[in-house]
Amino acid sequence: MGDGRYFEDFAVGQTFRSKAVRIEKDRMIAFAQEFDPQPQHVSEQAAAASQFGRLVASGWHTAAISMSLFVQNLPPVAGGGQGVGVDSIAWSRPVVPGDELRVETEVTATRVSRSRLDKGLVTVRDRTFNQVGDVVQTVSHTFMAPRRKAKAGLR
Amino acid sequence: MGDGRYFEDFAVGQTFRSKAVRIEKDRMIAFAQEFDPQPQHVSEQAAAASQFGRLVASGWHTAAISMSLFVQNLPPVAGGGQGVGVDSIAWSRPVVPGDELRVETEVTATRVSRSRLDKGLVTVRDRTFNQVGDVVQTVSHTFMAPRRKAKAGLR
Repeated sequence: MGDGRYFEDFAVGQTFRSKAVRIEKDRMIAFAQEFDPQPQHVSEQAAAASQFGRLVASGWHTAAISMSLFVQNLPPVAGGGQGVGVDSIAWSRPVVPGDELRVETEVTATRVSRSRLDKGLVTVRDRTFNQVGDVVQTVSHTFMAPRRKAKAGLR
Repeated sequence: MGDGRYFEDFAVGQTFRSKAVRIEKDRMIAFAQEFDPQPQHVSEQAAAASQFGRLVASGWHTAAISMSLFVQNLPPVAGGGQGVGVDSIAWSRPVVPGDELRVETEVTATRVSRSRLDKGLVTVRDRTFNQVGDVVQTVSHTFMAPRRKAKAGLR
């Protein structure tokens, strides 16, 4: 619990850039079979007959991959960052097999929790880019981090 | 493309209820190792030392499971429902191993696309409940469905 980043370590305007990760067709299909079994996500044949005309990733797969890149981006939050919620997700372009995705994270808001003075809320915007620089997803989400002063007895 | 549900088949106030699905610890950890490797999600030992004190599911795992229950809830959208975006996700309670989740979907808005007159936008609210009836997640999201009249040449 002593390691990691506290609320006070985050500031509006901080940015973090992830490495890129390649999205393989087999993983795309496996995720969709488990979580989003619609024709455009689960097989090339079914996708060809869909309104997409080709296999595309479930937006929830893109969201999960983007989360993994976000987590790699940030130094760990002390005690584990607690996801409070998501303000919005916009899927602006399809993700297709072989795409290489990377995430840019920007801290957009910080505030002390109103109900728990030993915690702070950090809001970030994650933009996910493909290999040609198109934004495929934009997420704004908020997590809770402990305040450093909590260690000194602040309640 | 001829099968499935069109925009006109959705109406505000329609509700759908999914079956329940049990969340196993092994799958919870596997999902988190791939997509959200924070201490409270990846091992019981690390979770015990986190601010949660026990293993809890990644919110993104809850979101993906809820999506799978939503997809099972709805009759298929003609040509495949195209996710446009998520208006909000709120995680109101932790999900722990052995929880049984189910989803109630309500159509909250329908409108014709402004940019594509052959498409309509359907907004739904999915509430995810655990086995004791607590809401663990609320999502509002929007997907696109083809208009039936498009078949008659509307553009």
